[in-house]
Amino acid sequence: MANTAANSKPVPTLVSVDPFVPDIPPFATVKPGEVFKIECHDWTGGQIGNNDTSDDVRDVDLTVVHNLSGPIAVEGAEPGDCLVVDILDVQPFDKMPWGFTGIFELENGGGLFAREFKSRAAKAIWDFEGIYASSRHIPGVRFAGIPHPGLIGTAPSPELLATWNRRETGLIAELGAESVPPVAYAPQPKGAYVGQDLDDKIKEKIYQEGARTIPGREHGGNCDIKNLSRGSRCYFPVFVKGANLSVGDLHFSQGDGEMSFCGAIEMAGIITFKTSIIKDGVQMFALRQPIFLPSPIDPMYSQKLVFEGLSVDIHGDGKQYNMDATVAYKQAALNAISYLQKLGYTREQAYLLLSAAPIESHVGAIVDSPNACVTLAIPTGIFEQDILPKPEGLERTDYGQCAVRSDRVV
Amino acid sequence: MANTAANSKPVPTLVSVDPFVPDIPPFATVKPGEVFKIECHDWTGGQIGNNDTSDDVRDVDLTVVHNLSGPIAVEGAEPGDCLVVDILDVQPFDKMPWGFTGIFELENGGGLFAREFKSRAAKAIWDFEGIYASSRHIPGVRFAGIPHPGLIGTAPSPELLATWNRRETGLIAELGAESVPPVAYAPQPKGAYVGQDLDDKIKEKIYQEGARTIPGREHGGNCDIKNLSRGSRCYFPVFVKGANLSVGDLHFSQGDGEMSFCGAIEMAGIITFKTSIIKDGVQMFALRQPIFLPSPIDPMYSQKLVFEGLSVDIHGDGKQYNMDATVAYKQAALNAISYLQKLGYTREQAYLLLSAAPIESHVGAIVDSPNACVTLAIPTGIFEQDILPKPEGLERTDYGQCAVRSDRVV
Amino acid sequence: MANTAANSKPVPTLVSVDPFVPDIPPFATVKPGEVFKIECHDWTGGQIGNNDTSDDVRDVDLTVVHNLSGPIAVEGAEPGDCLVVDILDVQPFDKMPWGFTGIFELENGGGLFAREFKSRAAKAIWDFEGIYASSRHIPGVRFAGIPHPGLIGTAPSPELLATWNRRETGLIAELGAESVPPVAYAPQPKGAYVGQDLDDKIKEKIYQEGARTIPGREHGGNCDIKNLSRGSRCYFPVFVKGANLSVGDLHFSQGDGEMSFCGAIEMAGIITFKTSIIKDGVQMFALRQPIFLPSPIDPMYSQKLVFEGLSVDIHGDGKQYNMDATVAYKQAALNAISYLQKLGYTREQAYLLLSAAPIESHVGAIVDSPNACVTLAIPTGIFEQDILPKPEGLERTDYGQCAVRSDRVV
Amino acid sequence: MANTAANSKPVPTLVSVDPFVPDIPPFATVKPGEVFKIECHDWTGGQIGNNDTSDDVRDVDLTVVHNLSGPIAVEGAEPGDCLVVDILDVQPFDKMPWGFTGIFELENGGGLFAREFKSRAAKAIWDFEGIYASSRHIPGVRFAGIPHPGLIGTAPSPELLATWNRRETGLIAELGAESVPPVAYAPQPKGAYVGQDLDDKIKEKIYQEGARTIPGREHGGNCDIKNLSRGSRCYFPVFVKGANLSVGDLHFSQGDGEMSFCGAIEMAGIITFKTSIIKDGVQMFALRQPIFLPSPIDPMYSQKLVFEGLSVDIHGDGKQYNMDATVAYKQAALNAISYLQKLGYTREQAYLLLSAAPIESHVGAIVDSPNACVTLAIPTGIFEQDILPKPEGLERTDYGQCAVRSDRVV
Repeated sequence: MANTAANSKPVPTLVSVDPFVPDIPPFATVKPGEVFKIECHDWTGGQIGNNDTSDDVRDVDLTVVHNLSGPIAVEGAEPGDCLVVDILDVQPFDKMPWGFTGIFELENGGGLFAREFKSRAAKAIWDFEGIYASSRHIPGVRFAGIPHPGLIGTAPSPELLATWNRRETGLIAELGAESVPPVAYAPQPKGAYVGQDLDDKIKEKIYQEGARTIPGREHGGNCDIKNLSRGSRCYFPVFVKGANLSVGDLHFSQGDGEMSFCGAIEMAGIITFKTSIIKDGVQMFALRQPIFLPSPIDPMYSQKLVFEGLSVDIHGDGKQYNMDATVAYKQAALNAISYLQKLGYTREQAYLLLSAAPIESHVGAIVDSPNACVTLAIPTGIFEQDILPKPEGLERTDYGQCAVRSDRVV
Repeated sequence: MANTAANSKPVPTLVSVDPFVPDIPPFATVKPGEVFKIECHDWTGGQIGNNDTSDDVRDVDLTVVHNLSGPIAVEGAEPGDCLVVDILDVQPFDKMPWGFTGIFELENGGGLFAREFKSRAAKAIWDFEGIYASSRHIPGVRFAGIPHPGLIGTAPSPELLATWNRRETGLIAELGAESVPPVAYAPQPKGAYVGQDLDDKIKEKIYQEGARTIPGREHGGNCDIKNLSRGSRCYFPVFVKGANLSVGDLHFSQGDGEMSFCGAIEMAGIITFKTSIIKDGVQMFALRQPIFLPSPIDPMYSQKLVFEGLSVDIHGDGKQYNMDATVAYKQAALNAISYLQKLGYTREQAYLLLSAAPIESHVGAIVDSPNACVTLAIPTGIFEQDILPKPEGLERTDYGQCAVRSDRVV
Repeated sequence: MANTAANSKPVPTLVSVDPFVPDIPPFATVKPGEVFKIECHDWTGGQIGNNDTSDDVRDVDLTVVHNLSGPIAVEGAEPGDCLVVDILDVQPFDKMPWGFTGIFELENGGGLFAREFKSRAAKAIWDFEGIYASSRHIPGVRFAGIPHPGLIGTAPSPELLATWNRRETGLIAELGAESVPPVAYAPQPKGAYVGQDLDDKIKEKIYQEGARTIPGREHGGNCDIKNLSRGSRCYFPVFVKGANLSVGDLHFSQGDGEMSFCGAIEMAGIITFKTSIIKDGVQMFALRQPIFLPSPIDPMYSQKLVFEGLSVDIHGDGKQYNMDATVAYKQAALNAISYLQKLGYTREQAYLLLSAAPIESHVGAIVDSPNACVTLAIPTGIFEQDILPKPEGLERTDYGQCAVRSDRVV
Repeated sequence: MANTAANSKPVPTLVSVDPFVPDIPPFATVKPGEVFKIECHDWTGGQIGNNDTSDDVRDVDLTVVHNLSGPIAVEGAEPGDCLVVDILDVQPFDKMPWGFTGIFELENGGGLFAREFKSRAAKAIWDFEGIYASSRHIPGVRFAGIPHPGLIGTAPSPELLATWNRRETGLIAELGAESVPPVAYAPQPKGAYVGQDLDDKIKEKIYQEGARTIPGREHGGNCDIKNLSRGSRCYFPVFVKGANLSVGDLHFSQGDGEMSFCGAIEMAGIITFKTSIIKDGVQMFALRQPIFLPSPIDPMYSQKLVFEGLSVDIHGDGKQYNMDATVAYKQAALNAISYLQKLGYTREQAYLLLSAAPIESHVGAIVDSPNACVTLAIPTGIFEQDILPKPEGLERTDYGQCAVRSDRVV
């Protein structure tokens, strides 16, 4: 036995899952300063397969999402404190070196362009080769991942939870519960899963009051911020004793906006954490929502091709919106999709690619009434082909099509 | 005479202005491949002074903006072509090494938080020391500029102009002409200035139909994108013979969003261009709006403190919005302002600083109904002080106040 | 069993080692395009322990280094081809999340300043927390790793091997075999280990002719280039059929120059590869030594404090050298060490830190006779403390001492 | 007169030169905190012209170099202090938007490969288009400048000057005064120019003792460090009252190593400074040579093709050197030159290009006896052509030749 064996303590894994067997994550308590690992299912809990049709995406059961790991209590954390969370690493499982990006059906999940595109299920499987991802469904690109948790956050207090439910059910009431895709998701028992062996009355209460995890909220949650990547340091407000950190929805990569909804490269994997507590941090830092420091190892692709968008629906009916950054983002994205189609990608491939690759989207200006301006930047270095505009035009390549439904409806 | 004199041809200045004397810019025609310079007034045409009150901002005449230079015709450009514009350099005038950032009155110009803050005029004067800017009105920061034109674009065709006027006057009709600040700006004769000695009938036509330049549009225009900086290459759609490029509203620096409206470091200065034409580029590149390649010399501040915002007005009445990235941007900005106030900056200073410094704002996710997520990143390296969250809290410094009205109303 | 199980093929591990049991690495053959993993011992084969004395460094047996994994043959590779090697990932073993940096004794291994410092054994143990390393022996710093193989290369042809032996034994003859530390290392049977069950005559031949692996050579080898990190693509000349790639000496991090000799953060770990062959590449690319493309995820620390050095021994006897970049590097390094000592680090801690952290050393100018100029840049963001020069001087902290010999001799 | 005129004070120019008329720079005194400009001739004082032969390079009078501006005294600076110099900007003259890179004759100036190449005069003229340089003599490349002073430093004390003269004349004595190119440059009256109307006895003393400015030394001087660029902050040791800062040899761009000697893009231009003093800084910071912080706007080209070199002269006689980083740099450079020749550049073009473009050269490892390893990285984004190795080889383009002697001898 070599000298190296002594004092070699592996980092303990607190939540352990088999990515192929959806199972109940246990909960645990950590001390500040401890390094620990949490294993996570992909956000659907293993519903999507490594194959070449999108039938599983079409048929996905979204009542069970997000599949999370936790909560983890941190000793000493109390409401009003700031929980510092170092995201030390995020890795896929060795035995599952792949992930997926999906376009969901208009009627089952939707996505940013679900209505414009009348979306039918499509997907791309991404193979991980070390730090890189590439896809047989979107040939011609390869990029370094920026692995991160799509969803991470502390637990809400009952008061905060009540606020969420009140305002979101209010929005549903305002805009219509029958909206497709839904405008928001009220608590519902179907598919809810709380893991532990709990008293039936508590379970029932959770089913009735537990917020669904689709949107990010004041505690963090499903913010889907790609730069919350391995190496970042995050500061969360604490709302309950122990903070109760939960995590899931790991992404190997994602573009700003995650436009196709299941737009990141979704994966199962392992996240490594360290925590500390700053007493009374909420007041000291005016911490109404999480803040964070990005990682020094986020990928660097210096050359980018940037598309602009304004709050006029020039790709639709030409309607003028009033300083609407969401509309502006959509126009920038549609301009980028049109450009990628000139290179030979199908609309579905382009939509998936912009969702999954390290796309940067900036709010350019948001004061020049009535037009907000949003940009969307594609790193040119991720393409095998030179994609820059040229006097002779763009070279069109046949990239086939992504994985679509077995009935070939797109 | 040294050898160096021979064959030394300075780059010609096509539009020459004295930044202290508002004057009519001439027009000119260039050949593709020529390098040329254009001098530009600041966007207000010299209304704001290097002094310590904001009375000039309070009283600014906005009917005359933007003060532009051009148009410049490019030989051979025709509708449907792509005009490639290299922004080779952007520099302030040697004799005017300063710029300004203003908060405009709620009733005269407004800004992103004009209503929330019931804005009264305030400003910061920035001194340029080579590549850096610092301000006696916002002590404790110094940063490298990212000089760029806030406004640059080709000329619209009559059809496109008609489209603009139709949709924007439609919005005014929809949302109310008496809105404060206005939702949009219809053509009006007052303050309009078209430069050349034109026939009265043509002038009258322009007064009645000429689009006001506040918003960016399909041709580019006032997009206020900070990364259209010196060294960038831009691709514009051409709508009229000659393309007719105009430029103005030069900025020494700007934060993503330019939140206080006159939020960049506004300056007079000189821009250096080179152009080329890609025939039929609009069709070849699906070019419905400009696209561009950013500069390799944009400042690099690797460490950033990032604030999150969602489409819930947590700083106001708590209202839930539906996937509204504008609301999300505002929350991220308000979170950042609150943080900066903990360091000792006034709300006005923080608002001006976030408008003017190289702040990065990303669309994080725009699919997690009902909450869009937008982030706002402050580079920590621009501060003299260490601004990171610490166990002992933040050190509060007295930074005084920015320039306010002589009646001290803020 | 979830859908995710189907088609999930883990990347095969071709060379598998237990980092705690030095063992014979098997050899294997791969096809171009295959992704595979290689496990590697640390370069000493497990002689250095995770403890707080440097006695193991003092007593290290260097006749057995480097402990390598391989060779791996690539199907179809022939002399004159270019072997493209994608270093897809480099990771420590889960069960051994630590590494070491050592100062070796003047008489047993040496190092760049072995003579100047009359080096006695010292070391720092580094704990890995995800992407970061920190050390109880060098407090106050923490940095992102840039994991890479210190040693990687193809196998030499007999002719090339003969060239190596001729020129290196020539140097020994020229400069003296008794030099301490040695100027070069001739083949020797002691400690040589060739892994497979080979015929005795072949073994004997290897013992007599096999080049020792300390220096890098035309095939790559122990170049200790920190930017050959995970995500990089390398192009090697092929000298023998199959190319016969070997790898070892994994580093979690290293500074340019690796000045203390065992200066990187040495670790056992796992490297992931993919290869391809470019026929006749040596001629096509004038490939006399490897070339490579660095990774897009190398850590980014934008602010750096840079020290200069010239080819004058100002830290020694003041001797003027003739355009000697090695002397210049040493002066820059000694200037940096002096600076770090002002912050409270001991000379040994500073020496180890500059060896192990992501220090950048550039050849500034190498034509201004007689002084070559070399710079050495310390990223300021790796320190907890602000290390920049300040009007009030530098804050001196007591950082203790690194691990030294049990007899306390340093 | 607009409001903008009031309080607009241009930055004063303290040393003013006409780049076409070599003239005596005056001296001046500044207060700490003042921003001021210094105009500088190119280092030869205007001997090289914007034309298409290298006869002026062949015939250059090197007894008069470097042509410097200064010295500038800083009020309050005393020996032992640290002079902080902010290099706020570096710009070419508007009326001279071009610079030059030269290969000097073996017998008149030399260069890193003067002997290997038996160098005859050659040059490239670079045209500046805003932040970019390109050359009709080296087609196919265009890159952002990193403008900086090749030479900047404080004045030596008499004792330090005596040390310089002693050690450098010692080297000449050791290696031979007749070495071609010279190993060092002793003081000599011919071509010496000290600017002011000085007493004859003082002039004579200067002629006999004044150090020639070719090498960098402890005070800074001709270090030719490309990252001392606009936006950097430098800390110089002060040796005499007033510090007496001098500057010159402005470069629009340079590669690490500046290998062809006159290898940067040499230009006349204007540098903007601000200074401050840190009392007793030499002791506080162990400041034996300058240290500095690079600029946040140095160009960013993320993709690089890296060449390796070792201390074996594989491009020459195969000689083994002992840990010689200069030899290693040369091999890396020769490997890069060979590669560029495969793309169609001549040896002279490649040599000039690597000298002038933003090439990065790192000391990889300097402890693996007997082979130092140095790398040289070419940013691929400066080429119009894709220069990466490809299975089909490299595309060879006819790039003509750089400017050579009128007798066509190369």
